Amino acid sequence: VNEEEIQSVLARVIERIRPEAEEVAAIWQVADRLIAAVTASGAAEPMVVGSVARSTFVRGDRDLDLFMLFPPNIPREALEEQGLGLARSLADQFGGSYQEKYAEHPYINTTIDGIDVDLVPCYKVASATAIQSAVDRTPFHTRYVIARIGNLADDVLLLKQFAKACGVYGSDQMTEGFAGYLCELLVLHYGGFLQVLAAAAGWRSRTVIDLEQHAIKTFDEPLVVVDPVDPNRNVSASVSLSRMFEFVEMARGFLEHPGEEFFIIPDPESISREALSAALEVRGTCLCAVTFATPPFIEDVVVPQLRRSLEGTCHLLERSGFMVNRADACMGEEQCLLLFELLAPSVAHVRRHIGPPLSSQENAEKFQKKYSDPSLSITGPYIEDGRYVVEVLRQFTTPETLLGSDLLLSVSHGKHVRRSLKKGWQVRLGGDCWSEEFAEFFNKFMNASSPLVRLLKRGAGRGQD
Amino acid sequence: VNEEEIQSVLARVIERIRPEAEEVAAIWQVADRLIAAVTASGAAEPMVVGSVARSTFVRGDRDLDLFMLFPPNIPREALEEQGLGLARSLADQFGGSYQEKYAEHPYINTTIDGIDVDLVPCYKVASATAIQSAVDRTPFHTRYVIARIGNLADDVLLLKQFAKACGVYGSDQMTEGFAGYLCELLVLHYGGFLQVLAAAAGWRSRTVIDLEQHAIKTFDEPLVVVDPVDPNRNVSASVSLSRMFEFVEMARGFLEHPGEEFFIIPDPESISREALSAALEVRGTCLCAVTFATPPFIEDVVVPQLRRSLEGTCHLLERSGFMVNRADACMGEEQCLLLFELLAPSVAHVRRHIGPPLSSQENAEKFQKKYSDPSLSITGPYIEDGRYVVEVLRQFTTPETLLGSDLLLSVSHGKHVRRSLKKGWQVRLGGDCWSEEFAEFFNKFMNASSPLVRLLKRGAGRGQD
Repeated sequence: VNEEEIQSVLARVIERIRPEAEEVAAIWQVADRLIAAVTASGAAEPMVVGSVARSTFVRGDRDLDLFMLFPPNIPREALEEQGLGLARSLADQFGGSYQEKYAEHPYINTTIDGIDVDLVPCYKVASATAIQSAVDRTPFHTRYVIARIGNLADDVLLLKQFAKACGVYGSDQMTEGFAGYLCELLVLHYGGFLQVLAAAAGWRSRTVIDLEQHAIKTFDEPLVVVDPVDPNRNVSASVSLSRMFEFVEMARGFLEHPGEEFFIIPDPESISREALSAALEVRGTCLCAVTFATPPFIEDVVVPQLRRSLEGTCHLLERSGFMVNRADACMGEEQCLLLFELLAPSVAHVRRHIGPPLSSQENAEKFQKKYSDPSLSITGPYIEDGRYVVEVLRQFTTPETLLGSDLLLSVSHGKHVRRSLKKGWQVRLGGDCWSEEFAEFFNKFMNASSPLVRLLKRGAGRGQD
Repeated sequence: VNEEEIQSVLARVIERIRPEAEEVAAIWQVADRLIAAVTASGAAEPMVVGSVARSTFVRGDRDLDLFMLFPPNIPREALEEQGLGLARSLADQFGGSYQEKYAEHPYINTTIDGIDVDLVPCYKVASATAIQSAVDRTPFHTRYVIARIGNLADDVLLLKQFAKACGVYGSDQMTEGFAGYLCELLVLHYGGFLQVLAAAAGWRSRTVIDLEQHAIKTFDEPLVVVDPVDPNRNVSASVSLSRMFEFVEMARGFLEHPGEEFFIIPDPESISREALSAALEVRGTCLCAVTFATPPFIEDVVVPQLRRSLEGTCHLLERSGFMVNRADACMGEEQCLLLFELLAPSVAHVRRHIGPPLSSQENAEKFQKKYSDPSLSITGPYIEDGRYVVEVLRQFTTPETLLGSDLLLSVSHGKHVRRSLKKGWQVRLGGDCWSEEFAEFFNKFMNASSPLVRLLKRGAGRGQD
């Protein structure tokens, strides 16, 4: 691959994604007004954090994070009260309507001059290891990156855009991908965008990156990037094994066949009800959907609970004789969806039940006596390989009767999901699973589509020419 | 349990199974004539072996084994020629028609005065460890038992009859059970019929019985009874784990609830085509039969080959997505049968195919390139848990198309079974699997019936009153 060719691709991308001067100026105009107002209040010290502060935001991402640093000795309640009070007054003064939001702590979100602004109270602590809440760490991240980013800001933009186009950008629970700060650290560590890709092409699970060589524990996650401001923290704890290796494969793919398409975020595609039915016909599988009202909480709270329900329900299905080909969950505005693709629409009524080894006389006798009752077994107890075996009849021979029963509540669910399920749920099969709300999700599910598949399938796979 | 009650049961059984004086006299009359004739020939030394020699034959089992012991220095061919010549002349002289049969070596089977007689040439070797063929060992077994059986002959009769009624008597490949000599050794070792049952009730897998305390190796079989005349041989090598524990459970059952029914050999039962279909309806399973012409060899040769084919075909079915609930094989006069009960009549067209881990870059790339060809995969390659996954379409979605294809020949078969299969085979489903030839076998298969089940199910299991 031609170095010049790569550089020309990157130059064209940078041209497209680097924020325009007017955009930067407009954001900083808002920022400067807020900084002045917080300073004037005398209550807290203002600080712009995030990608705006570090000049690493991608064109169009007009998000301004203004932190208000309060003395660490005031009580938590006072911080929230004074902090939110100050934030509200700023919003009243400069913005329009505002919303109170919650991460670990409450903050105010508003829009000022068309720019999305978060006004976040935090403690001004002496070091990132002395934080009282996760938000207290953010100023340290900002200072660390600003002090080192030098002329690598464009490389961070490229990496963020690449990760977005690959579908691996974002540390939220749904994405399980790469946070902006993680992209910055990778660029700092490897020294540039292409250097990150070259290194990633060789990553293995349990790759450890420790910029300050100060880790004081070992981490279990597939990718470990020790936070330079906190040796106890893995910045890439959110990155799942799948997202990590999607990134790895995209890196390999780009280095072999560089192209601008690796930086283009695809438009989401939907599948129609008819196309869904047709695809199921070809696959010969049985699609089964459980839907219920979405609990009134944010994605990062609900999505992990959906994953837990999904796993528990998969076990219930497999224990009950239904082989799960694939499963996934989706949190919509109105409804949540647990989706299972099963290898068969029903299962044999009969089921083998293996008893204790006969060498264990007492247990064998108990088993033999119990199952000699013809109401409990249809054949046996007979002996196979030194154990008693009986055949019994299953209670449920179809997934819809199983998942429609109270057994669904017997699996492990998160608190909010359980509460919502208790109010009722629907079970649907095949094409009837489809609904407008999940048309994009169904498309992704049925085609196992991802930016990775799309990009690497161009032609007949990379590296063949 | 009352000791008197047990003794009265056993007394009634013995009365029924002990050979009558006239029966014994008639057999020995034939034996004496043969002994005289062999002695007169001067070529070999005659010896009555087997249960007649040991007075341990059950009433009605009129089988006489007459061995002709030749000097060990004559060549094998001469032994066969002279031995068969002598045997034929004896058959001509005393019996009617005769048949040449083969175990490890040829012998003559005929009927003399209504008694089934085997005339078997063997070598008269100095010790059972110096044998040239398995038959040479038999005289040593006979001498060993005769010298020790004393007043335990009735106990051997009881044990043989008990084992027959339990369906575990016979060391042939179909039964995988207890040989007559093994029954004799167990009675000698434990000192009586009830003592054998009491000991068996506590048997575990890898129980070792060594009457002469002279084993010179360890054995792998579930039950080990070291041959007192050959420390290298396990007399119970033929006993499968299932047969062993069926015997154990029957022993436990009899000791708890003694009764004559433990000594009554049940009449075989058949199932009709209609009853078979009805049972399948209840079970909700898919019965699938492969039949082909029975190879022209004895059971002990063909049955192990059928087992091998059964195992290989089960793997083929499961590899291909068909879950096997139960499987068994049967050798009929005309046809052999491989029978599979499947949990579903078809399988989804789609199948996941898991690729190499992505950390292994070269393999991952090969996989990704290969399966990016849309003719090879219907979804993917996508990434799951650090590996590439694709979904492909199966070639066969029903068991009848799979087993009707040449893939059936690709599994491991014995020589004779393979030769027969190559001439053609039939695949049938559900009630159509039924045929008169296998009506008893189907009954056993569908009801998982065995003497054990029948006996222990009396009432609602033993030990409840």
